Amino acid sequence: MHQPSRARELVVLGTASQVPTRERNHNGYLLRWDGLGVLFDPGEGTQRQMTLAGVSASQVDAICITHAHGDHCLGLPGVLQRLSLDGVTGPLPLVHPAGADEYVDRLRSASVYDDRLSVDLRPVAAPGPVLELPGLTVHALPLQHSVPTYGYRLVEPDGRRMLRNLLQDKGIGGADVGRLQREGMLRTPGGVVELADVSEPRPGQRFAFVMDTAPCAEAVALARDADLLVCEATFGDAEADVAAAYGHLTARDAATIAREAGARRLVLTHFSQRYRDTAPLLAQARGVFPDTVVAHDLDRIPVPHRVR
Amino acid sequence: MHQPSRARELVVLGTASQVPTRERNHNGYLLRWDGLGVLFDPGEGTQRQMTLAGVSASQVDAICITHAHGDHCLGLPGVLQRLSLDGVTGPLPLVHPAGADEYVDRLRSASVYDDRLSVDLRPVAAPGPVLELPGLTVHALPLQHSVPTYGYRLVEPDGRRMLRNLLQDKGIGGADVGRLQREGMLRTPGGVVELADVSEPRPGQRFAFVMDTAPCAEAVALARDADLLVCEATFGDAEADVAAAYGHLTARDAATIAREAGARRLVLTHFSQRYRDTAPLLAQARGVFPDTVVAHDLDRIPVPHRVR
Repeated sequence: MHQPSRARELVVLGTASQVPTRERNHNGYLLRWDGLGVLFDPGEGTQRQMTLAGVSASQVDAICITHAHGDHCLGLPGVLQRLSLDGVTGPLPLVHPAGADEYVDRLRSASVYDDRLSVDLRPVAAPGPVLELPGLTVHALPLQHSVPTYGYRLVEPDGRRMLRNLLQDKGIGGADVGRLQREGMLRTPGGVVELADVSEPRPGQRFAFVMDTAPCAEAVALARDADLLVCEATFGDAEADVAAAYGHLTARDAATIAREAGARRLVLTHFSQRYRDTAPLLAQARGVFPDTVVAHDLDRIPVPHRVR
Repeated sequence: MHQPSRARELVVLGTASQVPTRERNHNGYLLRWDGLGVLFDPGEGTQRQMTLAGVSASQVDAICITHAHGDHCLGLPGVLQRLSLDGVTGPLPLVHPAGADEYVDRLRSASVYDDRLSVDLRPVAAPGPVLELPGLTVHALPLQHSVPTYGYRLVEPDGRRMLRNLLQDKGIGGADVGRLQREGMLRTPGGVVELADVSEPRPGQRFAFVMDTAPCAEAVALARDADLLVCEATFGDAEADVAAAYGHLTARDAATIAREAGARRLVLTHFSQRYRDTAPLLAQARGVFPDTVVAHDLDRIPVPHRVR
């Protein structure tokens, strides 16, 4: 029995915070989740970074923006125009803080183009689920920053994993497997087989995206049990006072959130231009939460396989 | 006698037309003219291209936009925000077609930032001079494209070149040289010396920037006797019909404009993504106008030295 291809990975399009560097474009992250693509925080240049990363316009099924600072949204016009040019018609959900409405409006009409893409605006004004995608629900919680900011949590529903040996024992194969999964039971020559007889619970996976914020309970709630947590880590220990002053996280803060939330893997990103070398930030985070990686532009970071 | 440093060059920030490629960012050109910097058509990503090219925010003294298609203006928010962040206070002249006013408005407020830069809006509604810079006048003429579009011509006033040997013969040196240049005459122990006695005419240089347009008389007028002409060359001979259909130039069209205008050097840019190799376009242009070069991202193309 073949499982469908289940590529789940983060395609890193940019890792800079306010100021891009030679090595880092502004933010941009495409979560590839089976056949689905969710683009987060397209900063300036995301359109071209997609080309460099081998991501096509048709791979973007939804966009989520955390807030209206330029490094998180100035790439939106280019992405929307590119999708339109490449024949994507939508409707394309565009999730963003309701408080950023006026900026989203301007970004959608920032230059002249032949707009053939239907955008499904999803302003977020309160915590909770904001978007249903095939096999994923997007939840939002407010973060603590200088402007209205939401973090996102993507939740796959719990399901069941089919057990090949038990299916064989019962003589079930081919299209009957799908029927059993859909209908919960199947009549066979040997009697009625229930789904639970030949499967075991398969917990859904979770992905969390926590950008510009001071440390807060909502960040932990977003990251709760996340298989992959992408978290800003603008600063290192030595600049903890700067982080606090501007409503940002240090790498250590991010790791503390990951540990408190019981996340599985932490991805650090959104680095200040002052850190050409992020190794010290990684070390500071790993001291708190060992399964931490640093994102580099054009990395592809797998979502860890489900725990069996 | 030392001449002041007179670096005159085009810093190429991007050379793509509608779709950026692995090798080409969207448009962006900084004309460095002695101590002055004029940024033309900042497409998306110009901010980072400036970093890659070693151009600082303080080197931008004015911005000229030809029209409101994204590849010519979507980098404006990032550039303005970067200048503001880096302490440039302005007033910064922003020349643009009056017909693009609403887009310029949106681009100036496309995301949240702490705006400390005073922008001196210069909408162009008619042909003529639109901006006086130290030692340069910017003129605008309308081009023929699908949206309001202006090309630009930068003109240095004619001046006089001081002749070192004649100055020495008259015993004139030091601060007296500048006084003679400013006042036109100087009393010396040997009598009155007039500027014309110790100098010769030095014709001013001219720079022309011709973007998206069908071939037209205005393009030739902009390029008249230009020392450096930067011209779109979106297509090659084989796509001449596409160029005509969309109001664009072929490389051959650009060369024809340069030849008719008596320009000195032609720079081709704004290439369609279909041309990974621009050598055929260069060959087509050189057949018409030999002193043609192809712009590559991050090139620095000198303005040819003055003809003596």
